[in-house]
Amino acid sequence: MSIESSSKGATGTGRMTISAIAASIGVSVPSVSKVLNGRSDVAPATRMKIENALQEHKYQRTARQGGTSATPLIELVFHQLDSAWSIEIIRGVERAASQNRLGVVLSDLGGRHGPDQRWMDDVLARRPFGVILVLSTLTVQQRRQLDTRSIPYVVLDTNGETPNDVLTVGSNNWHGGLAATRHLLSLGHKQIAMISGPKDVLCSRARVDGYRAAHAEAGMTPMEDSTRWSDFSVDGGYRYGIELITREKRPTAIFAGSDMQALGVLRAAREHGIDVPRDLSVVGYDDLPLAAWVGPSLTTINQPLTEMAETAARMILGIARGTEPRPRSVELGTALVVRESTCSAPK
Amino acid sequence: MSIESSSKGATGTGRMTISAIAASIGVSVPSVSKVLNGRSDVAPATRMKIENALQEHKYQRTARQGGTSATPLIELVFHQLDSAWSIEIIRGVERAASQNRLGVVLSDLGGRHGPDQRWMDDVLARRPFGVILVLSTLTVQQRRQLDTRSIPYVVLDTNGETPNDVLTVGSNNWHGGLAATRHLLSLGHKQIAMISGPKDVLCSRARVDGYRAAHAEAGMTPMEDSTRWSDFSVDGGYRYGIELITREKRPTAIFAGSDMQALGVLRAAREHGIDVPRDLSVVGYDDLPLAAWVGPSLTTINQPLTEMAETAARMILGIARGTEPRPRSVELGTALVVRESTCSAPK
Repeated sequence: MSIESSSKGATGTGRMTISAIAASIGVSVPSVSKVLNGRSDVAPATRMKIENALQEHKYQRTARQGGTSATPLIELVFHQLDSAWSIEIIRGVERAASQNRLGVVLSDLGGRHGPDQRWMDDVLARRPFGVILVLSTLTVQQRRQLDTRSIPYVVLDTNGETPNDVLTVGSNNWHGGLAATRHLLSLGHKQIAMISGPKDVLCSRARVDGYRAAHAEAGMTPMEDSTRWSDFSVDGGYRYGIELITREKRPTAIFAGSDMQALGVLRAAREHGIDVPRDLSVVGYDDLPLAAWVGPSLTTINQPLTEMAETAARMILGIARGTEPRPRSVELGTALVVRESTCSAPK
Repeated sequence: MSIESSSKGATGTGRMTISAIAASIGVSVPSVSKVLNGRSDVAPATRMKIENALQEHKYQRTARQGGTSATPLIELVFHQLDSAWSIEIIRGVERAASQNRLGVVLSDLGGRHGPDQRWMDDVLARRPFGVILVLSTLTVQQRRQLDTRSIPYVVLDTNGETPNDVLTVGSNNWHGGLAATRHLLSLGHKQIAMISGPKDVLCSRARVDGYRAAHAEAGMTPMEDSTRWSDFSVDGGYRYGIELITREKRPTAIFAGSDMQALGVLRAAREHGIDVPRDLSVVGYDDLPLAAWVGPSLTTINQPLTEMAETAARMILGIARGTEPRPRSVELGTALVVRESTCSAPK
């Protein structure tokens, strides 16, 4: 499938509807076509009028009519491209994509929570098979723009409430939080602090709830002032790690929301002469390859990032082949991996 | 620039020459056009005949004629997509690309040393602005295929001898090896072993030569049986680390060819009760973000991976704008970063 054949499809499909829409608001057919393809050479007012009309008439480009009209690309959009965490996701998407001869186009939002219109225009112009968003979201307007162009999107490890009809792939974060905390409780820890991810990110909250649920089922309440919300970085773990281990009533264990944060806690402990695990048990989250190599190696929650990414890519491939994905939300399992960074609570 | 306009260019430019070539070997013009665009629906024998004719007549697609005919994409090809090392490179390419509204298409060769024909067909069909190859190479035939389509390519951190006319971006590996070893020698180490990357990778050899040069300028020879060639993985460092520290005459310092290898050496030392840096100094290479966080933090050689990647992307952008890159080979500087993993040689 070449770009040439796909661009033929761009104007070759759904022409009747485009004509009707153009007529209904008194603009030219090429103008509607341009807006559909993310071209910037349409006046903003006209453009808005056309977008509104497309949505009002529930226009949907026919994805297949005399062959698919999409370009064999999958868009992979990161909220922030950093650390070995991203690599695991890229590998999963890349694996599914290359088996199906699709290119993977990577975007880094540089920390922004959602892509801007420029990105959207570029995507509409590229006409990919679909879009995978990692820890980022689309506005209602952006979702509609993709819908009218029949470009499916999947949210990976959602960063907030997504409407029911949005495709999502995640992992069982609540269970991960539960398993990590049960492990620490079973080792006799009673003063367990938690450094989670950002509070507005759904998976962080689910992990904290799992942490609380483990306490509750043991008939306990978490230690006072036990929870910190941070980003998933080493630096966040380091900063809150210092705060937690230097306070008067210090925890005997810290459950971190990511392996990177756990690395930060290890560093904080080292700098303050606190031995891990003898004086302080540390549990990470993700089970990145480095968790097995650092010293001490990390007890952590395995999150199947590569498989999650692969699942998201396969959802898009399925839609391109005309299958409706069922279920629309997939949650893969998490599992405790015990290594060197945890041991029995100090007497 | 939309995909629609670019595909118009695909058949709209250089048509005269295509006709002449088609006539010269008795095939149809669409067949030549299909082969130029990486389409698979041409019989293999015809295809080979056309490729040969294109090369024989030194055909070169006019990149610009009534607007560029390339799709705003840069292809980024990894020999192997792993570890935080790859992320640094992706970020550099992504930064330059997104500033210029180009998408970055990622490929992972899964350890193979060069892409296959399927990849090449997909790239020819996508018609990107250019290709960046990381630690991988193209065959002569593949280079010619890109040349006839006017798709420039840059080799990043070359894995072997590349012809003079090939664009390359690297860093001063010899100097990196020299600086690391000078540092260890200045700390009084006399038994310095080295675990380098693969022997057939140019940058590995340059680092070893720098290591030897530092010894030579100090009037010394490296310790006997001092050098190991491995891949750049943690596992390689771990395996050779154990071998080196358990032998009778063990080194007081190990210079590793990557931070990942250095992590492996740290782990080997921990498992054998050898304290770093008191009993063994360790120097890494790359200065990945994690080098600052692991315990002990790594003394290492900073290699500006992100800037190297950005430079490669800007070379391609320059060519797309019609500027001939000068020089055709760029080597960025490396620098020693001293942290906790090195100290004076044990008495």
